Amino acid sequence: MSKQQSISGFPEYLPNEQLYFNQLKDSIVHSFEKYGFSPMETPAVEKITTLLSKGGIDQEVYSVKRYHDQTANPAELALRFDLTVPLARYVAQHFADLVFPFRRYQIAPVWRGERAQAGRYRQFYQCDIDIIGDGQLSLEHDIEVLSTLAQTLTSIGIYDFTIDINHKKILVGVLESLGLTEQKQVVDVLRIIDKKKKISIDEIKKELLELVNQDQLNGLLFLMDLKGSSADQLAALEKYYPENATLTEGLDDLRSMIQLSEIFGCDKYLNLDVSLARGLAYYTGLIFETQLAAYPQLGSIASGGRYDNLAENFSKKKLPGIGMSIGLSRLFAALSEDTSKLSVSTPAQVLVAVQEPQHLAFYIHLAQFFRLQGIKTEIYLEHKKLVQQFKYADKKNIPYLVTANDDEIKNDLWVLKDLRKHEEYRLSSEAIVAFIKQ
Amino acid sequence: MSKQQSISGFPEYLPNEQLYFNQLKDSIVHSFEKYGFSPMETPAVEKITTLLSKGGIDQEVYSVKRYHDQTANPAELALRFDLTVPLARYVAQHFADLVFPFRRYQIAPVWRGERAQAGRYRQFYQCDIDIIGDGQLSLEHDIEVLSTLAQTLTSIGIYDFTIDINHKKILVGVLESLGLTEQKQVVDVLRIIDKKKKISIDEIKKELLELVNQDQLNGLLFLMDLKGSSADQLAALEKYYPENATLTEGLDDLRSMIQLSEIFGCDKYLNLDVSLARGLAYYTGLIFETQLAAYPQLGSIASGGRYDNLAENFSKKKLPGIGMSIGLSRLFAALSEDTSKLSVSTPAQVLVAVQEPQHLAFYIHLAQFFRLQGIKTEIYLEHKKLVQQFKYADKKNIPYLVTANDDEIKNDLWVLKDLRKHEEYRLSSEAIVAFIKQ
Repeated sequence: MSKQQSISGFPEYLPNEQLYFNQLKDSIVHSFEKYGFSPMETPAVEKITTLLSKGGIDQEVYSVKRYHDQTANPAELALRFDLTVPLARYVAQHFADLVFPFRRYQIAPVWRGERAQAGRYRQFYQCDIDIIGDGQLSLEHDIEVLSTLAQTLTSIGIYDFTIDINHKKILVGVLESLGLTEQKQVVDVLRIIDKKKKISIDEIKKELLELVNQDQLNGLLFLMDLKGSSADQLAALEKYYPENATLTEGLDDLRSMIQLSEIFGCDKYLNLDVSLARGLAYYTGLIFETQLAAYPQLGSIASGGRYDNLAENFSKKKLPGIGMSIGLSRLFAALSEDTSKLSVSTPAQVLVAVQEPQHLAFYIHLAQFFRLQGIKTEIYLEHKKLVQQFKYADKKNIPYLVTANDDEIKNDLWVLKDLRKHEEYRLSSEAIVAFIKQ
Repeated sequence: MSKQQSISGFPEYLPNEQLYFNQLKDSIVHSFEKYGFSPMETPAVEKITTLLSKGGIDQEVYSVKRYHDQTANPAELALRFDLTVPLARYVAQHFADLVFPFRRYQIAPVWRGERAQAGRYRQFYQCDIDIIGDGQLSLEHDIEVLSTLAQTLTSIGIYDFTIDINHKKILVGVLESLGLTEQKQVVDVLRIIDKKKKISIDEIKKELLELVNQDQLNGLLFLMDLKGSSADQLAALEKYYPENATLTEGLDDLRSMIQLSEIFGCDKYLNLDVSLARGLAYYTGLIFETQLAAYPQLGSIASGGRYDNLAENFSKKKLPGIGMSIGLSRLFAALSEDTSKLSVSTPAQVLVAVQEPQHLAFYIHLAQFFRLQGIKTEIYLEHKKLVQQFKYADKKNIPYLVTANDDEIKNDLWVLKDLRKHEEYRLSSEAIVAFIKQ
């Protein structure tokens, strides 16, 4: 007999927590489907060669192997570390069977062998949507994804959030105009700029000066200092930096997107941050991150962007896409700090209590009738006294309890107790259904 | 660039298949919750020591290890191969925080490194419910689980099925009365009897004769030959075999359970099969399997039983339970042979088509209005001609398409096309919402 403990970094929940987690997940599903995204589910396991085809975070990959395969053969399978690589593999593999633009959502756990720490999990849920075009994909889709994100957050009760947006071509264009065009240098400079919320400006300057000269640094600092309305920032960029085709494309795209965001009604959530530089190298257009006003320490809880070619490692087709991912496990950890969300530990709306065991059949018939009527019903089937049945309902915070004695059963007049309001009614079984339903 | 293929044994679905799969899953969730079962989700990964504590199918276990951990250290983690061992670990670990009888459902994939073949997967969904008592658990719970199973199958459109039931104590009692009491012998004899649907009676006889004498064989064959009503079968058992405490307990339990099944209204699905011998050694009371009339080749698609002690390896508590598991992946494979279930490949109820691109804002406003009203809506945002937008709706089998020209937009009189009935209406945006909702 061994004492059981959780494995660090692999969260699991008690029933009340799980119910709230599922409620969040269901709301997200509903919101994604309202925007016409189709559900998709890839296996947890992919070939290692598939997962590592984009390079990147192979240090965190969990490999999977038959336990009894004791040979030195390297593992061939691994757990997915995100939902984007499986999407790329899926779209390449099933290309001929899909309709484009292809819109899918996937809400599923991913696994990363990180060192576990507060808010960092080894298994955690991502909620992804992507729209993939066959050869082309209009800018409107980018804003539809931002609109889906905004609507999804409000659907789970989050109203005070900011989606910081930028355009990869603004960053690249600015760097080009400063004479920074060498691929590795561009990546390194963007990586440093990306740290601006984590380290001080002095540290940023120091790191940048190892890569750029003083003039270039000044040009980068101007970018990082820009504030104000979108129109003002874009105008300032145009004025400050020498004209440059990449930058102009970025500015034009952003202006179109801001206009579209007004049409979609999500402009009020957007904040242009022209030095936002998301880490992932494959973004080519819009990039964005999301901050919750109430939980600044969480960092971004939803992010994404536009990429030119989803499946370049898997397909000859050009498949541009726009996508985003909500970090549900971290979001849940934050939202569930409000313990009022965790008061219920069963989906049951009512407990049928067995007051007189010799009439068990009537109580069971009542419970079965409630279920037939669509009411989530528990019946207390352990042979215990009524007082203990009340305690059970109380511990699980079931809102209603129904029972009856011999006489009441005969007259189909049951006692319905509202356990929250401490009120009591005598109603027929039909009337109880109507009462609970409204 | 590599050509992508599925990994054998790890199924994934196209959008139309996934939608139907999710519809089945949602119906099962709804049915489980109507019976007051709470959702539970354990991590995909458990400690290997936890998974192997009950012995059994360790040959099929997939171990999990950080890919870059190249040391010879044995893996410490593994993917779960069922949902029962994680349940035992969970209940032992969280005992103090749970309310008993503890009722949970878990619908989740499990992984087994079997040789992949038709209908055998390496990743597949199980839908489990269990009720766990603290020290005791009345027989009523067993029948509530059978009732949940019956109601769940009808909720997904399966009406013609049989739940074969038996009681472990009938088997053990019969064997005792025949002088077969040695533990290993009992297990081996039951294992052979369990093959009765797979191999011929002559083979069964041959295998049994290696373990038992001719008299004992005759006693076992009587058991395997019994047919008729439950009452007749139980009476015949009582008459044929010498009286025996274990057998009597089994008979009494079964009689009570059959009576309860009439009260719960699930008796019509039950079939007493007194030689049903489910493989798993830990069952101690009711055992059952489920056959679908339309798919006899599927074998059992839902099975389970009563066990005396769920978590004996993890806890000093005695935790009796009753549980069952529906094999959703296999069920889906069978039900989706009816391709009429697979006609839809998007949750969207309507496509807003952009007839006059200069009025894009109006079409977007309409789509956003529909979504706000709870209607699952796609809007065609790629810049293509109307005829291609119709083709898109057609390929995805979206039921309705809405569009309008300049004039119609001004008058809020949109053209609603019912793409299935080939009918057309002119309605205001409000009226379209009402129309689609009913």
